[in-house]
Amino acid sequence: MKTLLTNLSGRKVATLVGDLLETISLWSTGKGRGPVGADALLETVEALLSRRGEASGVMLARLVLDAYEDASAEEKTLFLRTLCESFGADETALAAAIEAFHVAPSPQAAARLNAASEPRRREVLRRLNLAPEGTPALVRMREDVLARLREEPGLKPLDDDFAQVFASWFNRGFLTLRPIDWHTPAAVLEKIIRYEAVHVIEGWDDLRSRLAPPDRRCFAFFHPGLPDEPLIFVEVALTRAIPDAIAPLLVLARDPIAAEEATTAVFYSISNTQKGLAGVSFGNFLIKQVVEDLRHALPNLTTFVTLSPVPGFAKWLAKERADAASTHLGASERTALDRLDDPEWHRDPAACEAIRPALLAAAARYFLVARVDGRLPDPVGRFHLGNGARLERLDFLGDRSPQGLAQSHGLMVNYLYVLEDIERNHEEFVERSVVTASSEVRKRLPREAVAKV
Amino acid sequence: MKTLLTNLSGRKVATLVGDLLETISLWSTGKGRGPVGADALLETVEALLSRRGEASGVMLARLVLDAYEDASAEEKTLFLRTLCESFGADETALAAAIEAFHVAPSPQAAARLNAASEPRRREVLRRLNLAPEGTPALVRMREDVLARLREEPGLKPLDDDFAQVFASWFNRGFLTLRPIDWHTPAAVLEKIIRYEAVHVIEGWDDLRSRLAPPDRRCFAFFHPGLPDEPLIFVEVALTRAIPDAIAPLLVLARDPIAAEEATTAVFYSISNTQKGLAGVSFGNFLIKQVVEDLRHALPNLTTFVTLSPVPGFAKWLAKERADAASTHLGASERTALDRLDDPEWHRDPAACEAIRPALLAAAARYFLVARVDGRLPDPVGRFHLGNGARLERLDFLGDRSPQGLAQSHGLMVNYLYVLEDIERNHEEFVERSVVTASSEVRKRLPREAVAKV
Amino acid sequence: MKTLLTNLSGRKVATLVGDLLETISLWSTGKGRGPVGADALLETVEALLSRRGEASGVMLARLVLDAYEDASAEEKTLFLRTLCESFGADETALAAAIEAFHVAPSPQAAARLNAASEPRRREVLRRLNLAPEGTPALVRMREDVLARLREEPGLKPLDDDFAQVFASWFNRGFLTLRPIDWHTPAAVLEKIIRYEAVHVIEGWDDLRSRLAPPDRRCFAFFHPGLPDEPLIFVEVALTRAIPDAIAPLLVLARDPIAAEEATTAVFYSISNTQKGLAGVSFGNFLIKQVVEDLRHALPNLTTFVTLSPVPGFAKWLAKERADAASTHLGASERTALDRLDDPEWHRDPAACEAIRPALLAAAARYFLVARVDGRLPDPVGRFHLGNGARLERLDFLGDRSPQGLAQSHGLMVNYLYVLEDIERNHEEFVERSVVTASSEVRKRLPREAVAKV
Amino acid sequence: MKTLLTNLSGRKVATLVGDLLETISLWSTGKGRGPVGADALLETVEALLSRRGEASGVMLARLVLDAYEDASAEEKTLFLRTLCESFGADETALAAAIEAFHVAPSPQAAARLNAASEPRRREVLRRLNLAPEGTPALVRMREDVLARLREEPGLKPLDDDFAQVFASWFNRGFLTLRPIDWHTPAAVLEKIIRYEAVHVIEGWDDLRSRLAPPDRRCFAFFHPGLPDEPLIFVEVALTRAIPDAIAPLLVLARDPIAAEEATTAVFYSISNTQKGLAGVSFGNFLIKQVVEDLRHALPNLTTFVTLSPVPGFAKWLAKERADAASTHLGASERTALDRLDDPEWHRDPAACEAIRPALLAAAARYFLVARVDGRLPDPVGRFHLGNGARLERLDFLGDRSPQGLAQSHGLMVNYLYVLEDIERNHEEFVERSVVTASSEVRKRLPREAVAKV
Repeated sequence: MKTLLTNLSGRKVATLVGDLLETISLWSTGKGRGPVGADALLETVEALLSRRGEASGVMLARLVLDAYEDASAEEKTLFLRTLCESFGADETALAAAIEAFHVAPSPQAAARLNAASEPRRREVLRRLNLAPEGTPALVRMREDVLARLREEPGLKPLDDDFAQVFASWFNRGFLTLRPIDWHTPAAVLEKIIRYEAVHVIEGWDDLRSRLAPPDRRCFAFFHPGLPDEPLIFVEVALTRAIPDAIAPLLVLARDPIAAEEATTAVFYSISNTQKGLAGVSFGNFLIKQVVEDLRHALPNLTTFVTLSPVPGFAKWLAKERADAASTHLGASERTALDRLDDPEWHRDPAACEAIRPALLAAAARYFLVARVDGRLPDPVGRFHLGNGARLERLDFLGDRSPQGLAQSHGLMVNYLYVLEDIERNHEEFVERSVVTASSEVRKRLPREAVAKV
Repeated sequence: MKTLLTNLSGRKVATLVGDLLETISLWSTGKGRGPVGADALLETVEALLSRRGEASGVMLARLVLDAYEDASAEEKTLFLRTLCESFGADETALAAAIEAFHVAPSPQAAARLNAASEPRRREVLRRLNLAPEGTPALVRMREDVLARLREEPGLKPLDDDFAQVFASWFNRGFLTLRPIDWHTPAAVLEKIIRYEAVHVIEGWDDLRSRLAPPDRRCFAFFHPGLPDEPLIFVEVALTRAIPDAIAPLLVLARDPIAAEEATTAVFYSISNTQKGLAGVSFGNFLIKQVVEDLRHALPNLTTFVTLSPVPGFAKWLAKERADAASTHLGASERTALDRLDDPEWHRDPAACEAIRPALLAAAARYFLVARVDGRLPDPVGRFHLGNGARLERLDFLGDRSPQGLAQSHGLMVNYLYVLEDIERNHEEFVERSVVTASSEVRKRLPREAVAKV
Repeated sequence: MKTLLTNLSGRKVATLVGDLLETISLWSTGKGRGPVGADALLETVEALLSRRGEASGVMLARLVLDAYEDASAEEKTLFLRTLCESFGADETALAAAIEAFHVAPSPQAAARLNAASEPRRREVLRRLNLAPEGTPALVRMREDVLARLREEPGLKPLDDDFAQVFASWFNRGFLTLRPIDWHTPAAVLEKIIRYEAVHVIEGWDDLRSRLAPPDRRCFAFFHPGLPDEPLIFVEVALTRAIPDAIAPLLVLARDPIAAEEATTAVFYSISNTQKGLAGVSFGNFLIKQVVEDLRHALPNLTTFVTLSPVPGFAKWLAKERADAASTHLGASERTALDRLDDPEWHRDPAACEAIRPALLAAAARYFLVARVDGRLPDPVGRFHLGNGARLERLDFLGDRSPQGLAQSHGLMVNYLYVLEDIERNHEEFVERSVVTASSEVRKRLPREAVAKV
Repeated sequence: MKTLLTNLSGRKVATLVGDLLETISLWSTGKGRGPVGADALLETVEALLSRRGEASGVMLARLVLDAYEDASAEEKTLFLRTLCESFGADETALAAAIEAFHVAPSPQAAARLNAASEPRRREVLRRLNLAPEGTPALVRMREDVLARLREEPGLKPLDDDFAQVFASWFNRGFLTLRPIDWHTPAAVLEKIIRYEAVHVIEGWDDLRSRLAPPDRRCFAFFHPGLPDEPLIFVEVALTRAIPDAIAPLLVLARDPIAAEEATTAVFYSISNTQKGLAGVSFGNFLIKQVVEDLRHALPNLTTFVTLSPVPGFAKWLAKERADAASTHLGASERTALDRLDDPEWHRDPAACEAIRPALLAAAARYFLVARVDGRLPDPVGRFHLGNGARLERLDFLGDRSPQGLAQSHGLMVNYLYVLEDIERNHEEFVERSVVTASSEVRKRLPREAVAKV
């Protein structure tokens, strides 16, 4: 607040914004909490929506966002609650619009109804964006809303407004794909380290090994309103074959190959970064764009494939094993899978050989047959298959890290992207819940299970 | 279309998009006009809104925009009409939402009503923006709508949708202010020449004289979706005093002053460029931002002022002179103003001296007293005064060009921007229709008129 | 000077640079011309070379360059003359170094001799370059030297020093090749218009037609010390065949082809821009680099060829025709060539047909046989053939412009660049004065002439 | 080599470069070492200097540099030795030039002598720079020369040539000052970590703490021929007072101040990065430029000062203490300084208090009086005082790190840069070996010592 007030020429502004500033200031310094704070809030935001907002919108938006940024957690909750409750649709106007539609329904009357039913919160969000650095501040505010949603379910309508406004602003047409490499500013790179959600980046040396070698690529979507923030990024390894394990890809000391020698682009990690943009989906667009761009830049690439975790598998398998009536596991498989209970099984070659066929058969059923609440129980699978990829291969012990063993007994999978088949695969998956898979994967299914697919 | 089809791998796409493409193609080549064309349109756009749109949205959006771009004027009209008529709100859903609100009005029910009443056209526009170069294509499409509006008033709802969607996308928070100077790419500069709407730029030498000298500046707003298109720009002269005529500012061979010596920044031209963005206002933000930036860069600048045309004055004055009952003109003024009927009056010093006081008195009344349909009859005046500027000076024969003489008998005015007074001036003007003016301007009013102000 | 003095904090500087400044100032204001001026010059430049120059080199260099820039033409002459005469090698040191070499010749003694014999002017030039904007100022100073050389042949040693220093600084390794297109800043483009030396650019529309269409390219070398100055540039047309006339390439309203459809890159104009860099050659490197880059960017390009003027041809031919004893022209050819004396011959198809074989035969002899002072009399030919190109085709009436008719009776030629043959062709031309030419060109030679080649 | 050969179209090149390539290849693969290798070298480099070099200089330079890069250490030594020995001045031409000068001494004859005495090595270096990436390759080659100089003193003439050529190329006028901050590409930042020579950077977090906070700055000089290589950089802290210890500046967790609040810019580390550019001095220019730029950007800054180590102090002091006859130490001081022999003295407040006055008195004499071989024994002192700074303060225990204690018993000093005094201070120091110091420092001298200064 101080910066702001000294930037403006104090006296005049005081006159301008009047008592408003004073009360905000009280509120934000915590001296006048409770009803006073709420009142001040109402007044400032009302000012922003009013004619005053036309003349001084940028300044008022800054006032509100700065005060919010400086506020305590409780004050923020209060702000959000009030915003949610007091800036809904204008009820009188809404009643009138409904009445008018009843009397004479028409496209025009529907449009009027639409305008009257829009909660005023949305215009508040749009006007707050007038401030410099408004967009990042609003994304953080949405994070605050999401973090409170469980305890304050009443904030749901506000969250819906954020989602609706962000979906319009973060339209794919406004995103730019930028390569991330060792020439990228450190300010962006440290965010790649921080946000990597699949295979943790252990520091700058690890990062360098993922960006600098000639057979590594990384791409991110950026939005002009958040210039230093990658919204989502994907890490790619260029290889000569589809890999069946993650560790060799992440080894620091490798002999890289020349990019021109690669035939296969492996998407081995894809991470969203902005919690505040939850529900605005980018991943679908990102992968397809990267496939197109790589295909153009490196014509030798013919295969575009992921190396993906299977985060829901161990949990699902545990449930099936616990359920004696489960039809997904045969008796001999159950016996073999019992050896998984030895935490050291993966170090014992004999155990591995015994477990492998049973685990892969179970995995095939997990992907192709099992449905929980009518859907594939694996979120990563839903993402790639929903994007139109096909399930290409099951990689036994592809991930021997503690996390990999815990979530999927080490199982990884490859999803294959063939641009020409994407729409058909997507259609099959979304419309009929059918997973397109390679014959190699399908063969893992016992005969009776195949019949069901 | 050809480019598109050869870019995609023909066979598969044919399967994908199926009959659709065929019908679009028929339609776009004009072989299958009428109902067929409309059907194909409906189908493609429906596909874009459907699940298929999720998987192949970028491609479908390109199909639609490319087909539209290649279409004839009549086909475009047909497309726009169909889009307007067939993609309104879902009537069943709307009826249900109204019913639900009746039964149990609540914020949730209002939100559902809002969603149900949104015309599907808006989502069509948002999805079309997925295509590369989608935003410029949509801005051109809006231009087409506006050009047809008089003959096809039924397109109004579609125009409203464009306005609503663009207002969200072109939020000031996403605009960047960039200086335009002699180091700007020629591809942008030629648009400055083309779009300059106030004082025509006669070619590259004229342009250079407005950009290159140390006492000239130009700034434009850009949007990331239209990277080479200035949306609005303002031309600025740095001077040692408030100028009272335009010609000396535009002379090609001047002795420029050093920027540091200037005390006054003169906004002598401001032009919108994108017809398709009509109704999305930028000018207000542009001027205030430029004032802030210049003040920071050149601390010696203390005065920020326009040199503006008065486009409505001659027409208003003619009407008052024709109306014997007009209270705005006294008898002696009428006599003096009769000399305006000699087209060469401005070359005759004696005539000028006779006309000057009468014309300035009339001008003072035009700005301070006269109202047509309750508002100031001057559009440029409404813009600057609505932005919170004050009327600083009336410049007799400030513009001796044929256009200047025709529209305002050569009158120009200076509007003064004082950041600290902007909100109060705006309030006065918008709320009470009172124009804040300097005492010099106010003195031009006869005593009895002052009383009315 | 004023700017400089107010930038520095006056009092102290006066102390610093002492009387020096005063005398410079006298000199540069013209009050103390003659011996005083020369003395002041000597002192300032001596200061720059001295220890004082170590501490304040940047400032002293600015003083000298600013004073020079502001000086009158006579003062500049005086400055250059003094610089040339008074800053030669230190004679005492040189004598000692010679003596030492006599006594004991060794590499070390040779090195000492080299150091002692370097004129101090070169270090002056290097130190002047410490000033901001020093390089362009020095390039302009060299222009001044060149312009005076005929009248002041005594400046030759100074010119040699410039040439030597510039050859080191403008080493090809420090040049960057940049495309020039319609997105290039206007400040650079106006220099393209100004410097185009072969086919005049008639203004911005003409420029646009050479840069913006998809089948046009332009490239320039830039040096970091002259950031806005293209040093040399080449204009390229992408075509489907080797063109035989210039007019169709320069037509404003053409239907351009897609770059990917072109098989041939035509270098139709190459221009040096900096007179002050005379003798530092870039053209050789430019063409080869552009050939490499285009070949990489557009793999369909297989032919790299010029369309070039023949500026020495008409003059040579006139001399041969006037010389009855010339062996280059046969009797029937002389008769045919007499028709050239009708200035309208090129509009008369019959005359053209009669002249064509004789003119082409003469042209073949001009290139392949005729030598003046032991060398090919055509400067453009010497440039391209010396670069290792081969003479591919003679284009009768390729340039019907008045200039084209005057300098070569309309003749143009194509030089072909085949990277693999460049070294051999160069060797042949430079070592043995043999022009490599296509068989089509060679066939134009009468049998007896062939024998001589 | 392989890359190169496949890049060129094999067959033709073989013809072109002929046997040359073969022998180089033999040489570089080590199969034909000894006389063959040397011969091949001679031939290639001769080719580069010859007419062949005009046509194919870029390619030949690449051949040489690539072969050199791939060579073993012994081969490199051989290459450098041969280059040094076989490419001196042309002896016949030199003899003739000397003779001519004897007969008729003149500026022209001196110039001819200069040209004839230039070792051909220099032209070799200039031609090698034609290759892409030639400059960094040559800087590395000079590093190799320097590393061999002790064992191969015969390489000195070659080293001199490098120094001479680099001094011309790396003229300050071609350097650009660029800020280094947290937005700088990681590829550059990792070099800052690697090259920091004064206060080791412990990794990326440490680096961040020196670049990202608002009260930290870093600047480097770059040369266009080495685009990713900072040549020299300086780290700056913005503070409210002249600091007297380094540790608080380097603490990771600090509360930074706003840049606008700072009055003092502290240069606490300056590091050269390119060993291969030894002898080309940048530091002088860097500091002065940074002072100018900071003064412009942050007008509140009034003091520009270093916080510097005193690397020669402990060694000098040990010698004086060991020398009973030394006049620099009084008896009581000797007693006090004996406590330095306890390695833990700096943790004992009483010892510190006892040592302080004696150590500071000794330090004052070290800087102001003591001279070794006629000069100040401290290299950092020579650098800053030679630049024209003044010795502002002695900081007792300013550096408690092991290195600081070892080299200077923890002493640090501040050198103050006052632009206006720089030339005078420089003059005093260089001409008369007088160190300009503050009265505070001078007061540390015992009366009798003062008399000597």
